Amino acid sequence: MTTVSANTPDAVAPEELQKIHAWWRAANYLNVGQIYLKANPLLKEKLSVDHIKPRLLGHWGTSPGLNLVYVHMNRLIRKYDLDAIYMAGPGHGGPAIIANVWLEGSYSEFYPQISQDEAGMLKLFRQFSTPGGIPSHVSVPTPGSIHEGGELGYVLMHAAGAVMDNPELLVTAVVGDGESETGPLAGSWKSIDFINPVRDGAVLPILHLNGYKISGPTVWARHSDADLRQFFEGQGYAPRFVEGDEPMAVHQAFAVAMEQAVLDIRAIQQTARRDGFDQRPRWPLIVLRTPKGWTGPRIVDGLQVEGTFRAHQVPVADILTKPEHLHILEDWMRSYKPEELFDAQGRFRAEYAELAPAGPRRMSANPQANGGLLTRDLNLPDYADFQVRFEQRARERVESTRVFGTWLREIYRENPDNFRLFCPDETNSNRLGAVFEVTDRCLVSAIEPNDDHVSHDGRVMEVLSEHCCHGWLEGYNLTGRHGLFATYEAFAMIIDSMAMQHAKWIEHSERVPWRAPIPSMNYLLTSTCWRNDHNGFSHQGPGFIDTIIHRKPAVARVYLPPDANCLLSVGDHCFRSRNYLNLIVIDKQPQLQWLTMDEARTHCAKGAGIWEMYSHAPEQPDIVLACAGDIPTQETIAAAWLLRQYAPELKVRVVNVVDLMRLCPSDRHPHGMSDAEFTDLFSTNTPVLFTFHGYPGVIHDLLHGRDAHDQFHVRGYLEEGTTTTPFDMVVLNRISRLHLCLDVLRYVPSLLAKAPELAVYCKSMLEQHESYIREHFDDLPEIKQWVWSD
Amino acid sequence: MTTVSANTPDAVAPEELQKIHAWWRAANYLNVGQIYLKANPLLKEKLSVDHIKPRLLGHWGTSPGLNLVYVHMNRLIRKYDLDAIYMAGPGHGGPAIIANVWLEGSYSEFYPQISQDEAGMLKLFRQFSTPGGIPSHVSVPTPGSIHEGGELGYVLMHAAGAVMDNPELLVTAVVGDGESETGPLAGSWKSIDFINPVRDGAVLPILHLNGYKISGPTVWARHSDADLRQFFEGQGYAPRFVEGDEPMAVHQAFAVAMEQAVLDIRAIQQTARRDGFDQRPRWPLIVLRTPKGWTGPRIVDGLQVEGTFRAHQVPVADILTKPEHLHILEDWMRSYKPEELFDAQGRFRAEYAELAPAGPRRMSANPQANGGLLTRDLNLPDYADFQVRFEQRARERVESTRVFGTWLREIYRENPDNFRLFCPDETNSNRLGAVFEVTDRCLVSAIEPNDDHVSHDGRVMEVLSEHCCHGWLEGYNLTGRHGLFATYEAFAMIIDSMAMQHAKWIEHSERVPWRAPIPSMNYLLTSTCWRNDHNGFSHQGPGFIDTIIHRKPAVARVYLPPDANCLLSVGDHCFRSRNYLNLIVIDKQPQLQWLTMDEARTHCAKGAGIWEMYSHAPEQPDIVLACAGDIPTQETIAAAWLLRQYAPELKVRVVNVVDLMRLCPSDRHPHGMSDAEFTDLFSTNTPVLFTFHGYPGVIHDLLHGRDAHDQFHVRGYLEEGTTTTPFDMVVLNRISRLHLCLDVLRYVPSLLAKAPELAVYCKSMLEQHESYIREHFDDLPEIKQWVWSD
Repeated sequence: MTTVSANTPDAVAPEELQKIHAWWRAANYLNVGQIYLKANPLLKEKLSVDHIKPRLLGHWGTSPGLNLVYVHMNRLIRKYDLDAIYMAGPGHGGPAIIANVWLEGSYSEFYPQISQDEAGMLKLFRQFSTPGGIPSHVSVPTPGSIHEGGELGYVLMHAAGAVMDNPELLVTAVVGDGESETGPLAGSWKSIDFINPVRDGAVLPILHLNGYKISGPTVWARHSDADLRQFFEGQGYAPRFVEGDEPMAVHQAFAVAMEQAVLDIRAIQQTARRDGFDQRPRWPLIVLRTPKGWTGPRIVDGLQVEGTFRAHQVPVADILTKPEHLHILEDWMRSYKPEELFDAQGRFRAEYAELAPAGPRRMSANPQANGGLLTRDLNLPDYADFQVRFEQRARERVESTRVFGTWLREIYRENPDNFRLFCPDETNSNRLGAVFEVTDRCLVSAIEPNDDHVSHDGRVMEVLSEHCCHGWLEGYNLTGRHGLFATYEAFAMIIDSMAMQHAKWIEHSERVPWRAPIPSMNYLLTSTCWRNDHNGFSHQGPGFIDTIIHRKPAVARVYLPPDANCLLSVGDHCFRSRNYLNLIVIDKQPQLQWLTMDEARTHCAKGAGIWEMYSHAPEQPDIVLACAGDIPTQETIAAAWLLRQYAPELKVRVVNVVDLMRLCPSDRHPHGMSDAEFTDLFSTNTPVLFTFHGYPGVIHDLLHGRDAHDQFHVRGYLEEGTTTTPFDMVVLNRISRLHLCLDVLRYVPSLLAKAPELAVYCKSMLEQHESYIREHFDDLPEIKQWVWSD
Repeated sequence: MTTVSANTPDAVAPEELQKIHAWWRAANYLNVGQIYLKANPLLKEKLSVDHIKPRLLGHWGTSPGLNLVYVHMNRLIRKYDLDAIYMAGPGHGGPAIIANVWLEGSYSEFYPQISQDEAGMLKLFRQFSTPGGIPSHVSVPTPGSIHEGGELGYVLMHAAGAVMDNPELLVTAVVGDGESETGPLAGSWKSIDFINPVRDGAVLPILHLNGYKISGPTVWARHSDADLRQFFEGQGYAPRFVEGDEPMAVHQAFAVAMEQAVLDIRAIQQTARRDGFDQRPRWPLIVLRTPKGWTGPRIVDGLQVEGTFRAHQVPVADILTKPEHLHILEDWMRSYKPEELFDAQGRFRAEYAELAPAGPRRMSANPQANGGLLTRDLNLPDYADFQVRFEQRARERVESTRVFGTWLREIYRENPDNFRLFCPDETNSNRLGAVFEVTDRCLVSAIEPNDDHVSHDGRVMEVLSEHCCHGWLEGYNLTGRHGLFATYEAFAMIIDSMAMQHAKWIEHSERVPWRAPIPSMNYLLTSTCWRNDHNGFSHQGPGFIDTIIHRKPAVARVYLPPDANCLLSVGDHCFRSRNYLNLIVIDKQPQLQWLTMDEARTHCAKGAGIWEMYSHAPEQPDIVLACAGDIPTQETIAAAWLLRQYAPELKVRVVNVVDLMRLCPSDRHPHGMSDAEFTDLFSTNTPVLFTFHGYPGVIHDLLHGRDAHDQFHVRGYLEEGTTTTPFDMVVLNRISRLHLCLDVLRYVPSLLAKAPELAVYCKSMLEQHESYIREHFDDLPEIKQWVWSD
């Protein structure tokens, strides 16, 4: 299959090029205005210090390039009726995108107070980088944007995720040469190994090389075009280079390069959709080398500014104190000839405004960039059909995530273009392999005979990059589709900052009325700290829970289902939700099953409850054994069982917590229990021995503000780990059933007299464990065989 | 400068090749033994199920390749007297490295119980992946290793950091094709843009393409050699390809390729050291394509294993239940002819053992991989020489990090090969630019006329990759040198997981007696959540503090110096320390200066103390105003001042905390205060209004277990943020001086009667703030001008 289209586009006619140039000048002008002006927006008066903002903030350097891409995309959207959106990777690109959005009219539609006239232009200028205004990054309030430009490195991932199962969508992704240095960006060029030209849309990457970061040169700006060509060709792209600093020449070259890229993309897609394809297409990519701060001041105070790092932020500062700087600014702004661009009322002249596409074809008004509008509910099969059934609870061990996998399989079946699983090569390892009965791993490059469920059409997204998995799913969510990110617990911390930034996006979006809620970001963490036998210490880290609980209560949800039926119930809730980060933590190893489906449903709906079948304290207990997480639940129930053997008269209550946020006071989290509910559950003045899956501090953090906090004694992962058995892990971190019983003796001192043999038993078993494990490399048979009988 | 050496190495003589092959067979044999055997290590008896471990753990797939590289490196170390170490990037490479370390004798030197005989071999087998034994990853107890193979993606960074200022060192860095998919690894190929052939050593990357991850194909295994060649050439490497599955042919080709690479590296270095250099050398790189699980079982149960994902872990399982599997295993092990390799006592035969280099030239005994042995104290100029002097405290605003930068400048001057600053392009932005008076930014590719302090010889490491910065510094620390990682606070979360893994390394190393302590990992976070005016919400995230406090108390340290003199004192302490993660958080903006140098020194030594000059409560206070962090300190002192104006009789005590871990109970952290000290500081039964830099939960977490915890009311960052002024940020998060006074009124209800105007004033000011900021986009003049007078 050829990936170069037969036709080379014609040169753009001079009059059209002039109009493009006019739009670009207008956008540049509006950029400068945002940085500098608090009055006199159309420069009707001679510029004076009274027109200048007291505090000059903003970043000019990247803007002319972003504006160039915008106007040329608009030309092609109109010419080819493209369904396209724009992602601005470079940091501080906010004012550029805002300028174009205002020029094409959508900004005033979303924000009527920022009208398309002189008064609106002034407000546009004044709101930038001011309190209550808008930041210098592309962000949530920016129409047409689903990519925040604050933390760099994710633009290609977001773009790739957005086009998956979105065959008509084209995402123009501008990549800054600064952000290109980040690991996540470098690792995301490979996204094209996972983009299927038949069923997915396309990403057009535009690498914008303007040479400098804040003050240093970028690595790539010092690589030759030949090197860059090799780099991109080696990854499967067909790069084209556009370079220059003479605007009209660059317009012409860039127009042709962009049009050629669009034609190539169309050819790739049309051919593949007609004939199928047998190898990864060679997608176009554009390298655009233009000066940093292009068309800005060339020289200020004797130093070159345009084309250097000095153009990064405010290229000419100290306007209020240096008259010559005011002149430079005025000359600069007037160089765009605003009087030619805007009429006396400040309206963008019709002959240029007509370059904008119509209605929702405008990138700023495309519903793909407000994905909640496009969100369809998942078609969710009844999870009860996949339940674990048992004669007697806690007899058999079942891999809970394997059960969950059978439900995921049916979700895939029922939602062929609206759901994907993203997994760093661990779908099988995480026991979710049932999905391969319905679909394959996706790989668009060569498939070999020994490959197991790998195909071009596969829709399980496996790549050994937590960053790509998370970023792709963000893009998929932000365009209105659903998914699940499943990974080893410890390695979720790799995307801590991505989770934080995505949480901030959702938090912010709830304050932007026109943003429709999007599907939640769902995390399933397996292979947890308690069962990483041979992997050892590096794989033992439950810290992602900490990351999630510190997000705003409106978006943060954490679930610790103790068994398969609870996992199904929790999963169903998460897949139906919007605008949350849902974290689900459960191990993949065979584990005891506690609740029937009906019990699980009721328990999960409450989020936390007394497990009567393991409690023997109808009213006031002597001790509450509380637990959250699968292994803590197992050890807690075992401790309750031991206590019943050795101290039958001890009144023990067992409480299990699935929805961690239920522990919060109700004024701190929407899921927080009322004080009355809390007291009903945990009693008053009774010691609570709380065994937790993660770091104990998390529970103290959540409980803060509860009157009953002092009665809680929390056990959890103490950062003790090594290569060892599951039981040895709970011993090392002192949450074993034996430790818990010894703790109960500590907190209920009267028990010692009632059950003198309990302490002896527990200590003896711990000693036996220690010597047995050294000899047999395995857990004590008594521990291994232990099964609850109710 | 040519980068290809004139001489092509000769083919290796057949008898030497046979010896190399024998070593390789021995290493492979020892790998298999570690996975399977608990008895009969030399196969003196026919293999029976009694010899097989009860639980088969381990990963065979990557091992033969790692063994191949090891023995060929040994040949070259001997031939050229190389100072070389080995970093095994692929996960689960532990048993391969261990096998080679045992063969060259160092393992028995570090662990005498694992002797070089049959008994030792058996212990070697039994300890692998067993409780109290060793994990399947290269890890801290592995002699010769400073790279943990658990979390993937960092091998090239660690290698590059290790060779910086280490001109004779060669690091052989094996990169797995799985880990190649990670973002951090993809972003670290560019390390050669920062390796100076004159003063730095060299990294030899060996990309090991064995085709599969856990169960899916790797992306790169499906890229052609031509594509890979372009990819690497495009980044400045000179790749060579070795491919095959016939051992002797691969040995010969690999020997020549490796030797050529070593000669190329020597040529690059010698030429550059003699003549200088003007462009980045084209460093060699080897792509090694061999089958996954090479030499292992070809077919098991009718399915191909060798060369497929089925060879990833245990290639033939169920040995105890399937006799034919036992036969496959025995045939496999005997295929290495152990009787030719080991004598009857299990000693590796002398004719093969002599392939190992001698003494510390063995990669497993090279002191570079136990960097504490090489650590020299920093030559630290007296920080008092850089102090901020003032007539009256809290009158002037000074950029504290700029002051710190002047001290760093002198540290650079005094430690020309033992200290580096690592910074994602923000040295100037973080106000540390004074270092450029002594050295430059490092860039080994082209320098241009407008570049500002950029040179090949520069030693400030700026790259827009938090991952590279952290990974390089880890490598630099682990080989015994000192450094500082400075970055924007919010973006430290990008390396959350790297910090966790490095902490685990240090935690673990304290349990490995032969590991000497290494310089601490020092973090300086500036551009904090309280002052990110135009950047807005994406740049506001103090979560890295949470990451650090959850590391083990033995390694976790957090400092919040309130001013420049405290920052100097804290910095001095950190630079002298070993085996810690020292986190320092302070903003870069002009801030009030509170303490003289002597006061700061005393205060920081205590870690927390009463600020008498702002307290008016000689004995029992009515309220304790505590603070940690620069902005919290400012607002707290301002609140104390307001309280003195409005309620002069109120007994206020101000406590400032610099060393956050002082808050912990002393049984939870080595810095934790005794209860007596704690009571002296915070009084008893007095409300404490604690204003904190980060999330309030951190303080609750640290205070847990203190009897006095209930009297604490914590304020901090509430995840409220946007583009706004510094004062508006403290208003939004309710830690402003006005909020603090209103809180005092809440916690000391009797105050209301005594100071009726205080509440009126505070509420009125908050209202004024709200309206003023909307109009003027700036803080209230009264707030801006506020200066403490003592």
